[in-house]
Amino acid sequence: MADIIDGRAIARQLDEKTKTQVDEMLAAGMTRPGLVVILVGEDGASQVYVRRKIKACEKVGINSIEHRLPADASQEELLALIDQLNKDPEVHGILCQVPLPEHIDTRLVLRSISPDKDVDGFHPVNVGRLSTGTGGIVPCTPLGVMILLQSVVDDFVGKDAVVIGKSNIVGKPVANLLLDAECTVTVTHIYTHNLPAICRKADIIVAAAGAPKLVKGDWVKDGAVIIDVGITRIMDEETGKEKLVGDVAFDEVQHAKAVTPVPGGVGPMTIACLLANTVQAARALQGDKDASSDYADAPSRTMFTEALSAK
Amino acid sequence: MADIIDGRAIARQLDEKTKTQVDEMLAAGMTRPGLVVILVGEDGASQVYVRRKIKACEKVGINSIEHRLPADASQEELLALIDQLNKDPEVHGILCQVPLPEHIDTRLVLRSISPDKDVDGFHPVNVGRLSTGTGGIVPCTPLGVMILLQSVVDDFVGKDAVVIGKSNIVGKPVANLLLDAECTVTVTHIYTHNLPAICRKADIIVAAAGAPKLVKGDWVKDGAVIIDVGITRIMDEETGKEKLVGDVAFDEVQHAKAVTPVPGGVGPMTIACLLANTVQAARALQGDKDASSDYADAPSRTMFTEALSAK
Repeated sequence: MADIIDGRAIARQLDEKTKTQVDEMLAAGMTRPGLVVILVGEDGASQVYVRRKIKACEKVGINSIEHRLPADASQEELLALIDQLNKDPEVHGILCQVPLPEHIDTRLVLRSISPDKDVDGFHPVNVGRLSTGTGGIVPCTPLGVMILLQSVVDDFVGKDAVVIGKSNIVGKPVANLLLDAECTVTVTHIYTHNLPAICRKADIIVAAAGAPKLVKGDWVKDGAVIIDVGITRIMDEETGKEKLVGDVAFDEVQHAKAVTPVPGGVGPMTIACLLANTVQAARALQGDKDASSDYADAPSRTMFTEALSAK
Repeated sequence: MADIIDGRAIARQLDEKTKTQVDEMLAAGMTRPGLVVILVGEDGASQVYVRRKIKACEKVGINSIEHRLPADASQEELLALIDQLNKDPEVHGILCQVPLPEHIDTRLVLRSISPDKDVDGFHPVNVGRLSTGTGGIVPCTPLGVMILLQSVVDDFVGKDAVVIGKSNIVGKPVANLLLDAECTVTVTHIYTHNLPAICRKADIIVAAAGAPKLVKGDWVKDGAVIIDVGITRIMDEETGKEKLVGDVAFDEVQHAKAVTPVPGGVGPMTIACLLANTVQAARALQGDKDASSDYADAPSRTMFTEALSAK
């Protein structure tokens, strides 16, 4: 039987570590980490996500502020708010909940956030640093994937890794992190021929295609490790209720070494990584050299390295 | 027999196109493109490279200025010069020849160049844009690799591409460009197991390992396309003279569809791409919408797309 990688438990461990770091910061006379979440408009799902993030902040001792703007707020208003938050020394993380209303240029808004406070890790500067292995804030989901992987992989060097999906928010950054860890990395996508054969050679599979049960049992070699990033809401034919399924046919991959469930795998890690990113950003912005915002030892990279070395 | 991809001829074609673009800019009342090359100290090889770049500019009608600083120039002096050039409307490209003297922080200097004038494409913002497929200036050698590839590959979609080497200046950006072109991409490196078997499946091989004659004949399947980025200077045992060899055992791969020679393959493309990048940057900085410096249609991306669509 494959080991089930318990994302909820690992997220709780990370939260405890984050809380300890906050306590240490306060003991050292630093300002308490502060995260601002900006919500424009009344999108229902966004409100749920924002509430969840705010609540998670409380648990680990991060100050959180929710800034609400009406749906018809102008782009200039939003940019002015971000400019003000960029300069505010009590704010260490800025997160602008997407989707934004259509009259606002999302890309322009996201790159107006200071790279040092971009706890989502989507600013081109952070993407560039990640790509070149020179620090920067690592986006939350890819960071979560790597922490889950390192809970079961002893040595990444020379492992064959296959990433399914080449999105900017999951596939590509995960591929870069795996390359940094010295894996041989194949990135596959909708135009890939013979995906089953490619997967069959993999020691590590990261499935982020958003295609329910795409990865079948006979795509997976004995002893592989599988991280399932996909989450699709489908109707359960037996119960008539909605349920969440991943990109992996979970029941068919019991010959793997380890696999993440959906739900309860990657999902819980994302908010935990957001909190960890916020604390690392707060440390770096307050001159903590161990969490320097400079190239070599930037926030999450430090944390990721620490997580790896703490194994 | 494999087709020999003639890098010198393709570089000449690109230069002609670049020259035509300069003429069109002048006819449209724009400022002539200007490239500044900064050389710190007296490194012999660097002087040769700089002279070659300056001379190439003349041929296509780009204004070129060489700024020399003494080897003991301070980092502050260099940063002040770059700051001044960033603001100079007659300067559209800034290139700081590396290596810099040891007392200067190379990374800090390179990222002080405005991303819009970073014709080498190494600024984190440009790396990030390349990684996310959202424009930016593409580094010269990877751009050259893609232009050579598109001279012989009709359709990239779904092709299996293997990149040997994961350097920030060649391997990783080439991998990103191949992914953008919808190839399935495997990035390999020194820790990769069974590289021969991985190469044997490839439709496209880009060798950038700096390991002479690494890629043997039986690593290459019939009809593959091979781009050899490696250049190593070795002693020819027969003649007793130095000669340049690539990463590919050229004589053994005649069953390939096409292969670049060394020298005369990728090498000549690099300066031609630098000139093309400079003109695209000059167009973008002067508000030419077709070469916008904004995300979607940034300088080299436009050129690359044009080169592809002109096929």
